[in-house]
Amino acid sequence: MNNSRKTIDISADMGESLGRYELGNDQELMKYVSSANIACGFHAGDPGVMRKTVELAKKNGVAIGVHPGLPDVLGFGRRHIEITPQECKDYVTYQVGALKVFVEAYGLKLQHVMPHGVLFGMIAKDENLARGFIESIIEVDPKLIFVGRMGVSMEIARKKGLRTAVMLAADMQYRSDLTGVISPDHKKKATDPIWAAERILRVLDEERIETIDGSYANIKVDTVLVHGDGPNAVDVAKTLSEKLVKAGYKIRAFGRPD
Amino acid sequence: MNNSRKTIDISADMGESLGRYELGNDQELMKYVSSANIACGFHAGDPGVMRKTVELAKKNGVAIGVHPGLPDVLGFGRRHIEITPQECKDYVTYQVGALKVFVEAYGLKLQHVMPHGVLFGMIAKDENLARGFIESIIEVDPKLIFVGRMGVSMEIARKKGLRTAVMLAADMQYRSDLTGVISPDHKKKATDPIWAAERILRVLDEERIETIDGSYANIKVDTVLVHGDGPNAVDVAKTLSEKLVKAGYKIRAFGRPD
Amino acid sequence: MNNSRKTIDISADMGESLGRYELGNDQELMKYVSSANIACGFHAGDPGVMRKTVELAKKNGVAIGVHPGLPDVLGFGRRHIEITPQECKDYVTYQVGALKVFVEAYGLKLQHVMPHGVLFGMIAKDENLARGFIESIIEVDPKLIFVGRMGVSMEIARKKGLRTAVMLAADMQYRSDLTGVISPDHKKKATDPIWAAERILRVLDEERIETIDGSYANIKVDTVLVHGDGPNAVDVAKTLSEKLVKAGYKIRAFGRPD
Amino acid sequence: MNNSRKTIDISADMGESLGRYELGNDQELMKYVSSANIACGFHAGDPGVMRKTVELAKKNGVAIGVHPGLPDVLGFGRRHIEITPQECKDYVTYQVGALKVFVEAYGLKLQHVMPHGVLFGMIAKDENLARGFIESIIEVDPKLIFVGRMGVSMEIARKKGLRTAVMLAADMQYRSDLTGVISPDHKKKATDPIWAAERILRVLDEERIETIDGSYANIKVDTVLVHGDGPNAVDVAKTLSEKLVKAGYKIRAFGRPD
Repeated sequence: MNNSRKTIDISADMGESLGRYELGNDQELMKYVSSANIACGFHAGDPGVMRKTVELAKKNGVAIGVHPGLPDVLGFGRRHIEITPQECKDYVTYQVGALKVFVEAYGLKLQHVMPHGVLFGMIAKDENLARGFIESIIEVDPKLIFVGRMGVSMEIARKKGLRTAVMLAADMQYRSDLTGVISPDHKKKATDPIWAAERILRVLDEERIETIDGSYANIKVDTVLVHGDGPNAVDVAKTLSEKLVKAGYKIRAFGRPD
Repeated sequence: MNNSRKTIDISADMGESLGRYELGNDQELMKYVSSANIACGFHAGDPGVMRKTVELAKKNGVAIGVHPGLPDVLGFGRRHIEITPQECKDYVTYQVGALKVFVEAYGLKLQHVMPHGVLFGMIAKDENLARGFIESIIEVDPKLIFVGRMGVSMEIARKKGLRTAVMLAADMQYRSDLTGVISPDHKKKATDPIWAAERILRVLDEERIETIDGSYANIKVDTVLVHGDGPNAVDVAKTLSEKLVKAGYKIRAFGRPD
Repeated sequence: MNNSRKTIDISADMGESLGRYELGNDQELMKYVSSANIACGFHAGDPGVMRKTVELAKKNGVAIGVHPGLPDVLGFGRRHIEITPQECKDYVTYQVGALKVFVEAYGLKLQHVMPHGVLFGMIAKDENLARGFIESIIEVDPKLIFVGRMGVSMEIARKKGLRTAVMLAADMQYRSDLTGVISPDHKKKATDPIWAAERILRVLDEERIETIDGSYANIKVDTVLVHGDGPNAVDVAKTLSEKLVKAGYKIRAFGRPD
Repeated sequence: MNNSRKTIDISADMGESLGRYELGNDQELMKYVSSANIACGFHAGDPGVMRKTVELAKKNGVAIGVHPGLPDVLGFGRRHIEITPQECKDYVTYQVGALKVFVEAYGLKLQHVMPHGVLFGMIAKDENLARGFIESIIEVDPKLIFVGRMGVSMEIARKKGLRTAVMLAADMQYRSDLTGVISPDHKKKATDPIWAAERILRVLDEERIETIDGSYANIKVDTVLVHGDGPNAVDVAKTLSEKLVKAGYKIRAFGRPD
């Protein structure tokens, strides 16, 4: 009975503009998500963009997470850089700190930390990098929720006692090991909003996902991600939100109490 | 009587290395100062350097301040960039936040914020930039002490109720309006440690400084700065420290209670 | 008789994308211009964007110029940085060199050099900076045409024997001293294409422009610029091109022989 | 008989300073080398440093090569970044172009292109990256000499008809596959100049090198490199130069005619 109302989080990467460069329609996207992953100036974003995105999230009642990335504007944090675990830790601490004060300046609290781009997969596979990443969260604020995919980073986060959330991207295909398929033209390809919403509904209901090799992989999703820089990100988020609500889901930030 | 023990702070710019580039002998310099102004990656420094400098400060019992600068590694934050008051505010908030979490990760508290390079003078002269800078401190932590020179930034900080500290550089000449004289080869010129220490002693005793035009300007100094990237910064700091102690001064961070 | 066919150049700033960030519709814009000012990675652009923009210009028979800017992606080269004449010279040489080899790799020749953003006005007013800029052109290739506005840079360029071209922006208002009016929201404001085209036609016919104080300033325009990052840049360029052709102008790169 | 005078090139990485950051004693080092690899602003160097280093090379009669690196100042071009072959090509073309104009402004010609840091090994192992790198040289100037180690980049360069030179570092150990051993503290470790010089003499005489596993690998060296940022780079270059001269070698840039 008390379970009659199912909840799910919809999140999006935001604050990815940089100076003159505008990327993503955060204004619109904010209406359909419950959590925002805000870039911190390493792969995207700048201090002014960070402030405005925090303000926008607050106005829309959207929970805020840190979206730390590799220091590579040219590659948008989407190409592998061979960093050490210590660099991983230091880069994350720096970025979390930079966003944290903006968030607190608006009377809010950070909800989570989710690695951006290639770093997301790097720490899911490399135990030492994962350790650096998780140590950073613990040293800054152990109440922060770690958002990732199943892998060593998730295991270490849980072992260390962190709260965690599992993310699935609405606009990506997955392999049987639950790694996402990133096509070279990934960033420019529109996603069919209906396909995305219906697939996510099945994933949430069945707690498994059909992978590109036709098999099924078990997954319990806490947050459904829409990449904010996708060409039709707003459509995807809107359709997803509507379909989920229609199906009886309450859209709510994963860090919020019931 | 209760005044028999005079106190003064000695500070230095630190954490100015960047990746492969090493600048300043922080290891040695730390022994002779009571406060450190740590760079935050905009004009100098990087996350790894920030962590190491915080560790070094802790080990030496040195109080830590943020040293935010303009985003200009090429110019080392020493050339004017036409930023808006909002950019000033956002850049400072970002940098304070980035350093704050490193400091707190080591169980310490930030003591102060001192603008680096050309930003130091910019906010002392431009009321709108000053307002942006001071608003940033207030939104992040109004217990932080603002360090500057007399000027609009100092006035606004005091009006807003911030604690403040007045800085005088041991290794610079001053004009009658108390602006420092920055020669083009400033960065490479050694400072005579004896001259510096004796001048500072006179300044502290007489609460005035002889300026380059031969006149005297009144000044009540809270912290004596040694530029960490000066070629003989350690000598200057060491001699200064020894002369001040000999003259009856206790070297102590300005934010510390008696 | 031989003069029955009047010619004019239409130019646009191009190649201003950067990694993931796309700016300007160069593909479309290329159809309506005769010259392209290509960014070189200091304020905008990156090596891959430079190559693609050169290819696009070649395909469209558009002449190529270098568009060197201040090293400031955050400010898009539109905010003043206090550089020395030597830095000005070195920054320009570097950027011209970087673009030159891409252009020559496609069997083309650079036509011109036009300073970007705030640098455009800086060298028109500051004689020492102007000297640095012009010296750079001379040391790299004295056959390059200097594009600017009337001012010290134009005077020095002519005195040094460089070919020059005078630029007027179709999408900006001007003061009586022929400095452009840059509003804070300049970058986001659409320009009325009809207004722009008709004004430019009058300017070309009358060799004078009505300024914001209602007076007229004499000007002999060699190239009419459309800012590539304007929200309706393609419309402005298209309308301008059509109106000029209709009025009997031949649109032709200023560096091309008759 | 005609072989009575043996020649060898000594080279060093130079121009690695950046703004306020000084790295390497180029002034002294220039005296003992015949070729300089000059950084181009991606991993180190800046336009002003490039000019000064070119001037210094000219004054010392030292041949100049381009030292393109990955765009990563934080990592000094020494950590792997997952770039595409096209990015490799574009980054190299850009950097070669930027340096080329400085060199030609002083009436000189570029001698060679040698990849910096991790890029050196990346193109020796990855055929597609190698192809991008070599294509860049060919499109900019096929008379440029490619400097590398044996590997796919060398093979492709030779197949494409480029002149090539084989480099061996005086201050590194080698594995049996002729890849250099880079220790984590590599950059700070002094090299014994006598050991280095004597080893190089043996390598030149015997055309083979003793590797860390005790075996010998055949190598015909064209240029002996001293890393300019090594703590005693000048000593190593000086001793090497003296020992080689004493042993009957003439120190001469590999691109120079006899």
